[in-house]
Amino acid sequence: MNRLSLNQKTVNGLGLAQAVDACARFGIGSIGVWREPLHEFGVERGVELVRASGLRVSSLCRGGFFTRPDRDEALADNRAAIDETAALGADCLVLVVGGLPAGSRDLPGTRERVRSVLAELVPQAADLGVRLALEPMHPIYCADRGVLSTLGQALDLAEEHDPSVVGVVVDTFHVWWDPDLPAQVERARGRIASFQVCDWITPLPADALLARGVMGDGHVDFRAVADLVAAAGYRGDVEVEIFNADLWAMDPDEAVALVRDRYAEHVGW
Amino acid sequence: MNRLSLNQKTVNGLGLAQAVDACARFGIGSIGVWREPLHEFGVERGVELVRASGLRVSSLCRGGFFTRPDRDEALADNRAAIDETAALGADCLVLVVGGLPAGSRDLPGTRERVRSVLAELVPQAADLGVRLALEPMHPIYCADRGVLSTLGQALDLAEEHDPSVVGVVVDTFHVWWDPDLPAQVERARGRIASFQVCDWITPLPADALLARGVMGDGHVDFRAVADLVAAAGYRGDVEVEIFNADLWAMDPDEAVALVRDRYAEHVGW
Repeated sequence: MNRLSLNQKTVNGLGLAQAVDACARFGIGSIGVWREPLHEFGVERGVELVRASGLRVSSLCRGGFFTRPDRDEALADNRAAIDETAALGADCLVLVVGGLPAGSRDLPGTRERVRSVLAELVPQAADLGVRLALEPMHPIYCADRGVLSTLGQALDLAEEHDPSVVGVVVDTFHVWWDPDLPAQVERARGRIASFQVCDWITPLPADALLARGVMGDGHVDFRAVADLVAAAGYRGDVEVEIFNADLWAMDPDEAVALVRDRYAEHVGW
Repeated sequence: MNRLSLNQKTVNGLGLAQAVDACARFGIGSIGVWREPLHEFGVERGVELVRASGLRVSSLCRGGFFTRPDRDEALADNRAAIDETAALGADCLVLVVGGLPAGSRDLPGTRERVRSVLAELVPQAADLGVRLALEPMHPIYCADRGVLSTLGQALDLAEEHDPSVVGVVVDTFHVWWDPDLPAQVERARGRIASFQVCDWITPLPADALLARGVMGDGHVDFRAVADLVAAAGYRGDVEVEIFNADLWAMDPDEAVALVRDRYAEHVGW
């Protein structure tokens, strides 16, 4: 239980103060903060609240969407996210890079855009001691959420920069299927900025964005992935991040208890 | 239009004779036959009908599901499919290898099972001059349809055998997102047994099995993939295989006309 981190999205109905309180009551030592509830609470107050709680902040979610039509807007939004990450003292800023722009079928060009926007953000992140964490997303989201589709591809991009400034996210939901996963996780040694867990369930729920399952409800072998991540030297927190309508409909305390118990059963770090 | 092949699944409501007739009426020179309608029509009669039609048979769909609990049943079913492929004179037997067995989370073990069942089928295929075509499937189907998730992984497996006996399928729907696609298609030179086209559409329809779109309705750059396949030396037919409830609800002649027109617009070989 020492390394469990509650990602706020897992308890989507809670505000920041309630999520922080839930961590304290359930003995969870780390939290993954989302920007929307942070903004809602007020960034300055929120930073004070989180810092006063003594919780570790395993990530701020999320920056990215580099592929939106207005490049300046993408840069400004991410610069604000980098500032917030520094203020929170979070381990990293998770980046969901964005999908194809509306009407575009230019996947290589869109991926090049990601590379170029990232490079423009790196100096600010380095100055502030913020680690950017590129999240490869399951190919189901390639068109509309993230054109970064494999851990190998994320590493190709990350390796253009210092590992203290650009790392990668290993999220079981996104990468569990990858036949090249063992080799790529080993290659990610020193670059794993975040380890997130949630399950792949079938049949896939109708809304693909809410297709994630609680550990144990699906097909992912969590210990196998956790062993790879540990063997690659990762010693950070393990974030449980689950987008799931059934989980969100539960009483929040019951949801947190379920997540805690399943984490203990299936990961147990 | 010379190389367009109508996969029967695109006109799911038609029986074998109707599908053959539609090809003739629309000037389509090739057909991808499915086993279920072939069995329904009667294999012997069906083979006669197809051979008499003068159509090329770009594939028989499908063998596979090597991962089902009963290995002997998997072998027997695939041996029958190989016989049918030979009788039809089809260019290949498309193999959807199967997902994780119920309750299993052993993805590496399941993939090993695929390798071993395939190896057992190769001698029969070689004897009958049948080409087995491994179909890498979009990772969305890894748990429940096919643990072969990338073209690279399919080639790793195929390369254990003679290219005239074990090839691969390049289906745009399954592989369009793959950042390694250009390199892997080039690597597939001499192994591309089938080239299938259909689009990736968003939002993803509620039933993931019917998530495929008509060319032009989604995000795939067909010419880019077709150029790769051509550069790798593929000179065979281009099968349009679309599982889509809206298409299936259309008048079949209108559906065939739509597919023919979109093929001409987006592929045009």
